[in-house]
Formats: sequence, structure tokens, C-alpha cells
Amino acid sequence: MDFTVETATAAVIESFQGAPDPRLREVLESLSRHLHDFVRDIEPTMAEWEAAIGFLTAVGRQCDDTRQEFVLLSDVLGVSMLVETLNGAEQGTESTVLGPFHMTASPRRELGDTIDLLGTGRPCVVSGRVTSVDGTPLAGAELDVWQCSEDGFYDVQQPGVQPPGNGRGLFHTGPDGTYWFRTVIPSHYPIPTDGPVGDLLTATGRHPYRPAHIHFIAGADGHRRVTTHAFVGGSPYLESDAVFAVKRGLIVDFTESHDPAAAAGFGVDAPFTHATFDIVLAPATGA
Amino acid sequence: MDFTVETATAAVIESFQGAPDPRLREVLESLSRHLHDFVRDIEPTMAEWEAAIGFLTAVGRQCDDTRQEFVLLSDVLGVSMLVETLNGAEQGTESTVLGPFHMTASPRRELGDTIDLLGTGRPCVVSGRVTSVDGTPLAGAELDVWQCSEDGFYDVQQPGVQPPGNGRGLFHTGPDGTYWFRTVIPSHYPIPTDGPVGDLLTATGRHPYRPAHIHFIAGADGHRRVTTHAFVGGSPYLESDAVFAVKRGLIVDFTESHDPAAAAGFGVDAPFTHATFDIVLAPATGA
Ligand SMILES: [Cu+2]
Ligand SMILES: [Fe+3]
Ligand SMILES: [Fe+3]
Repeated sequence: MDFTVETATAAVIESFQGAPDPRLREVLESLSRHLHDFVRDIEPTMAEWEAAIGFLTAVGRQCDDTRQEFVLLSDVLGVSMLVETLNGAEQGTESTVLGPFHMTASPRRELGDTIDLLGTGRPCVVSGRVTSVDGTPLAGAELDVWQCSEDGFYDVQQPGVQPPGNGRGLFHTGPDGTYWFRTVIPSHYPIPTDGPVGDLLTATGRHPYRPAHIHFIAGADGHRRVTTHAFVGGSPYLESDAVFAVKRGLIVDFTESHDPAAAAGFGVDAPFTHATFDIVLAPATGA
Repeated sequence: MDFTVETATAAVIESFQGAPDPRLREVLESLSRHLHDFVRDIEPTMAEWEAAIGFLTAVGRQCDDTRQEFVLLSDVLGVSMLVETLNGAEQGTESTVLGPFHMTASPRRELGDTIDLLGTGRPCVVSGRVTSVDGTPLAGAELDVWQCSEDGFYDVQQPGVQPPGNGRGLFHTGPDGTYWFRTVIPSHYPIPTDGPVGDLLTATGRHPYRPAHIHFIAGADGHRRVTTHAFVGGSPYLESDAVFAVKRGLIVDFTESHDPAAAAGFGVDAPFTHATFDIVLAPATGA
């Protein structure tokens, strides 16, 4: 009966043996094992245990309808990225984190529309093609796009400053699988630092910045959806993303173009910036 | 640069290398290792990761000034008990969990006082002696005592029903190291089940009950404080405490006495219940 450092894990695992759901049982067994091993490894003092409880409580207190501090915590510990990578397809465009700002539905827009509702930034065109792994263009593929402003804020972070839906768009590729939209170049930005996760970064000497990126979720019938980013080539923090989301293959050149004909073709004034981001979707599993 | 399932842990650990506090670095390294191993072990789907974030968020939402759901979570996963056991002295009375109800200061009381401010229960006398490991009685040792009512509720759970301080007392042993106070026999009770930790117990087929017990924190100059319980012998759930806190050496006989002289000596009416709980304190470490 006695609970000891040695028998603790077996006792807790035993308590979960009546769980009807075998997956829940498996998860809680593994959790108990790794959590107890962690505790036995670091041998926390009671004060440290209280500090950990206090930290988690503060993370909870920071959460509200527009802020998910537990996602941030998962992000800065590399857990979000690890889960995303474990779930990513083995072929096609690599996945990366969803991030905490995909919280409102992206407004449906037509190809060529701008997602920059402020209209104050330097014009940028993003275009590309969605294909399957064998190169077949995917017509009518869905592209959910969201990004921050030139100042590094998402619409939801600046109500009253940015209109809802700024930097967001839900597009569908044309008959040849291509897409294009107008926007501004997103800035690198800090993840929110005014909560306990920010305190953790400060205490450990880590900066809170993410390199500039545009979020994409791409999907098409018969294919796996991919959650990914197009990272802005040359952005600061590509080597030290606070949430570990950079993959080399996702870094894209954002090139300045002085070609008036190209500009006219996209309905913008030269000079403008042009980025090409092609997306390759793996076949649906078990389809 | 690329984050992969294999390089994830090294990348996250590397990010903490600038932490000035070596203990914080050590804790976060170990946390990263065990957390990532857990994730790699169970390979959560994105939906499962979202469910985990949702669960932690719900735990946070349940916390307020009189409710600590993260402590409950730590309790039902055996973590509280493991930390307490790792920190317990190797000699003397065994330690067990603090629990979530030591949240208000216990009122200072004199030996023989009752902590049952309701006065409706059957009388119970608790007495004992506090000694050091060599048997020396410890005069003036401090005993912080708290317990639930005969109905299984702590004062803080029933504002308006129980007066603040009901079931609580801060006592000091007499010149011979002995103490005694009057009370009622506490009931076994469920940990709060109206939050996400209750949902977890339900989903896993675990009951939420703790066997009946009286909490003690005992301390004396030159000795280590011990946080412990006196468990009521014969109580239901001694074999399956929801928070794993039972140690055989902490189970105490609560004996019915029909001895009018003994009753008179304690200022109660026979029959009454009498429990003897002696406490042995280990020497202070590094003193
Ligand atoms: Cu582990
Ligand atoms: Fe982002
Ligand atoms: Fe209790």
C-alpha cells in the first residue's frame, strides 16, 4: 500500500487501468511515466513544486478569447513543432506550427484580391501553384492565408487599429492550380511577452522573436492538408525562431521587381515585391 | 537549422543554454527531454494536442482564490505525493501531501480547545506527544492542524455554513511534549469533481475519494518540519486514496471510549472517541 519513490509510478498507472478508452489509458500511462521520471530526475524542493504550480496557474490566468498562453508555452518548448512534425506528411511541402493567431475565419477572397485592408504598405504579390506530388496541378485547392502587418501585429491583436480580416484570406486556386494575392511584407514579430511565457523567455535569456512569415493551410480533395509558413528570406531570427518553426525548404525569396509590365499584370505599381511559394500536397492517407 | 523529430530536443535544450540560473537550466533541460520523449512515445494527433491544450486551459479556468485545480491535477497524478516523499526526512514520522485546503491561517488555540466550532458532532479527542528521533520530548513544538467536518467539507468549502477556522487550530505542545485537542471525527470526502480533474477521474473510471484524515504540519526548533496526516483507521478508501497519500504508519486507531473518568479528564461526555498520534521529528539538516 505504501507510496514510495520507487512504487509511485506503478501505483498511478494501476489507478488508470479501469479507463474504458484504451488510447486514454495509453496516454496517461506514458504521461505518468515521463512526468514521474522528470520529478525523480530533478528532485524539486517543495518551493520549486509550488513555483511550478504558480507558473501553470499564471499561464491559465493569461488565457482568454484572443490569447492562448498554453499554446505559447507548447510553442516555446518545441512541443507544438514536434507534434506538427510527427503529423506531417512524408512527401510534399513540409508542415510547421499553426501558431496562436488562426483564431478567426479567414474571409473568402478572389484570386488577385489584396489582404492588406490598411492600404498603407509597400505592395507585395504572393503567387504560386498547388500541385500533387506527381506534379499534377490542383484546381480549386483551398488556401487559408494569414499574416501580420508591416508592424508585426495580427488583426486580432489590434482591434480598432486593424479591421477584422486584415492580413487574412481564403483563396481557391484557378484551373491551372495557380493562386496569387496582394499583400504587404509581414514583419518579424515577438510572441506576446506580457505573460508568464514571456517571463520564462526573459528568465532564460531567450528572445521572443519569430522570423517574418505568412501562414498557409492548403488542402485539396484526395490530398492531405498541410499547415505551413512561407518564411521571408533574409528576415532576422531565421536561425533562432522562438518557436522552432523554421525549415530550410520553407524560406522564400521576396524579390523586389522594377518591371512595370509585371507590376501592371498584378495591378500594382512598380517597384513591388514578389514572392513565389509553390505548395505540394501529399496524397490523402487511407483514401 | 531544420527542426526534425530527432533534433527537436537538442534544439530546445540549446535555446536554454543562456539561462543565467544553473538550476533553472537544469530543470528546463530535464523538462524538455521528458516532455519530448512523452510526445514521441504517444505521437499525439493534432486533435489530441488540441484536447491537451483545452484540458490545461480548463484547469486554469477552474483556479481561483479558494480552488487550486493544478494542485488537484498534481495530486491525482501522484506528483504531489512523489515530490513530498522525495522531500521527506528519512527518519521520524512520514510525510504526506499538503493538499489544497491549507489555504487560510489556522487560528491559534490552547491545548484542550476544540476545533469543532459547530458543536453538533460526536466528541473526539486527539492527543499525542512530539519527540525527536532519540525520544526527547519537544516542548513548545508547533502543530498546525486542519480537517474537514463530519460531512466531509472544509470550512473554506462552506462559507456561511461553517465559520472560518472551523476544523483548524495552531497548537503548541506542553512542557512534556504532549498535545491534545477536541474535535469531531472527520469524514472521508471526495476531492472536488466539478472541474476538469473530476472529468479526468470520471473518464478513467477512478473514484474521487480520500480516506478520512486529519492534516498536521509539525515543527520544532532544530528539527525538520513534517507535513503529514493522521488517517482514521477503518475509513473507506484507505486502499485507494485518490491522491495516493496513504502510508501504513500514518493510520491511527480512533477508539470509542466509555470511560467516564477519561472523558471527564478531557472535558467531554462519554462515550467519546480517542485517537493517539505521536509525532517524531528528524533533526534539521545542515543545522
Ligand atoms: Cu521521460
Ligand atoms: Fe505568425
Ligand atoms: Fe484533506
